[in-house]
Amino acid sequence: MRAKTVYLAGPEVFLPEAVDMGARKKALCEKYGFEGLFPLDNEIGAAPGGDTVDRLIYDANFAMIQRADFGVFNLTPFRGVGADPGTVFELGAMIALGKPALGYSNDADDLLARTRRAFELSCTDGVWRDEDGLSVEDFGAADNLMIDAALARGGFPLLRRAAPPERRLRDLEAFEACLMRAQAAFAAAP
Amino acid sequence: MRAKTVYLAGPEVFLPEAVDMGARKKALCEKYGFEGLFPLDNEIGAAPGGDTVDRLIYDANFAMIQRADFGVFNLTPFRGVGADPGTVFELGAMIALGKPALGYSNDADDLLARTRRAFELSCTDGVWRDEDGLSVEDFGAADNLMIDAALARGGFPLLRRAAPPERRLRDLEAFEACLMRAQAAFAAAP
Repeated sequence: MRAKTVYLAGPEVFLPEAVDMGARKKALCEKYGFEGLFPLDNEIGAAPGGDTVDRLIYDANFAMIQRADFGVFNLTPFRGVGADPGTVFELGAMIALGKPALGYSNDADDLLARTRRAFELSCTDGVWRDEDGLSVEDFGAADNLMIDAALARGGFPLLRRAAPPERRLRDLEAFEACLMRAQAAFAAAP
Repeated sequence: MRAKTVYLAGPEVFLPEAVDMGARKKALCEKYGFEGLFPLDNEIGAAPGGDTVDRLIYDANFAMIQRADFGVFNLTPFRGVGADPGTVFELGAMIALGKPALGYSNDADDLLARTRRAFELSCTDGVWRDEDGLSVEDFGAADNLMIDAALARGGFPLLRRAAPPERRLRDLEAFEACLMRAQAAFAAAP
């Protein structure tokens, strides 16, 4: 039986040592019997005939998502209160394709707690709002409800772990815990 | 022939006058021959049997996306340099379902320009990085490449328009321009 393939989504593609991070993640996948697919595995050459590099990267990533049996999504907050939008887009696609998705965050806080630290909020009649009057979700979730609920509905609630701040985008303990969960779930499935 | 249904995604659901915004968007849809589906149209009651409200909202929104013929996504930056993550999740789902998606932003700037204003960046060998060494995409795109490229590949490149700051989350000119585009495209289709 071939190893299940797992799409490895996350903002670590922006790290200076992104290729090494991909190799570390893929080695952990192998440990649990999976084949990791990392976006930077795609070789994007000079753009032929009018195509731009960003669109070729998009095509390659999307093809990987379509090819993968499941995905693990690094939803650690990235330059703001929420997850990396590229990763969130890919999570939406994976869910809509009906494939299992696991997600983790190396920040243990709720979205509301993070938003309270970053913005001036006030609470009236139980609703938190920012200075523009925009409400802040208060469901105890790590991020926007579409993210947390999609993962929970799929049977793998978002895993949160407070990694040391300096290792927030590099720590792989929660990532490995997702692989363990996936291995157990697939072993239990008929 | 029944009117095509269009899912109306965006952070305006967080506005104090969210229901009115939905009504305004739906009236514009009707003007162009479409039936608008707005997330707050879903009546979410008290959560039965262990289900939480956030998960019921998720279910209802996801069902709307599955039902819609296409979607219009408000990708105006929301509490940070990028789009609302809920909207981005929904865009990924719509694209993966193979349905037409149109997107707009009421901010005309590139992601890089916005990120430069919000963070300390430096440029070495043509690569912009933040203080943690994380690179910033420089494709002239409005947001993460997955967002802009997905829309462009679908034939409807992201529409940007500099709305007055105080109307950034309320202005509907770019939204209406998306509806016009959709109407023209569907009229031209066989």
